[in-house]
Amino acid sequence: MTDLSNYIRTIPDYPKEGIMFRDITTLLSSPQGLKQCVDAMAAPFKDKKIDYVAGIEARGFILGSAVAIALGAGFVPVRKKGKLPFDTISQDYVLEYGTDSLEMHIDAIEPNSNILLVDDLIATGGTAQAAIKLIRQLKGEIVAACFVIDLPELGGADKIKALNVEVVKLIDFDGH
Amino acid sequence: MTDLSNYIRTIPDYPKEGIMFRDITTLLSSPQGLKQCVDAMAAPFKDKKIDYVAGIEARGFILGSAVAIALGAGFVPVRKKGKLPFDTISQDYVLEYGTDSLEMHIDAIEPNSNILLVDDLIATGGTAQAAIKLIRQLKGEIVAACFVIDLPELGGADKIKALNVEVVKLIDFDGH
Repeated sequence: MTDLSNYIRTIPDYPKEGIMFRDITTLLSSPQGLKQCVDAMAAPFKDKKIDYVAGIEARGFILGSAVAIALGAGFVPVRKKGKLPFDTISQDYVLEYGTDSLEMHIDAIEPNSNILLVDDLIATGGTAQAAIKLIRQLKGEIVAACFVIDLPELGGADKIKALNVEVVKLIDFDGH
Repeated sequence: MTDLSNYIRTIPDYPKEGIMFRDITTLLSSPQGLKQCVDAMAAPFKDKKIDYVAGIEARGFILGSAVAIALGAGFVPVRKKGKLPFDTISQDYVLEYGTDSLEMHIDAIEPNSNILLVDDLIATGGTAQAAIKLIRQLKGEIVAACFVIDLPELGGADKIKALNVEVVKLIDFDGH
């Protein structure tokens, strides 16, 4: 089995100078890499009775639905503003410049159900924090948040743990 | 097994008056519905040696990666403008007002590989046509385009067939 980090492509100075962008498309396009990644994300939760996997738009959609099927769970999208057709709740989060918001359908999950949050990468943790707030507003029990990549220097995982949510990540990368 | 159409929620007058919006989130959030849908999308292609499933942003991401795993294929995202970090090719398509474009990484697929295109819904077929042009520009062989929902009155499936691409769809809905 290949180290998953070998599938990740690093693109220097994207989206701006000084940023080392971790590109997962080279992981996703490999049948072996994709399967290994999804299996590794699902494995810690096989016996946790996960009812729904919540995936954050857009790369969290790619991994979240596959993890949901691996766990026999449903999939719930956490979407950017204005993308969901039914009644929604909304949560702002801070970007480098300004704010944006995430939304979920008001009936996206059953109250007291077990939720696994999935995204490709955790950096500062702002979007994951917003997703956790939305899920809790809908009375979901967040079992854990699971990411392919963590950038530990940015402190996002610690912020999620401070919300009493377990963090699982497959790969740590230094730098931003 | 439930008829998949029973999982779809119809939202009248969204995003504007007169449109009957077909909401797949109620399908995705059902463990049975999600699994049944992905299995039905993958089934016709089990023996077709699919190398990559290409999913169109954003709802095509949710289904495409799961179909890819079911087929032992890789997943390739077809993204909206400016979202991919590496070098891209771009294809415009016409919206009701103005145009938008889809992009793929220039090295997203191996030349002569077999591609299955996946999205949640085909309406007028504009985005699927653009995705097919991109895949062909990268010298991919498009085996078929697969959708959960077709709105036959809008003629999109016929436009795709006119490009010599087989169309598979799970549900037909009347009206727009």
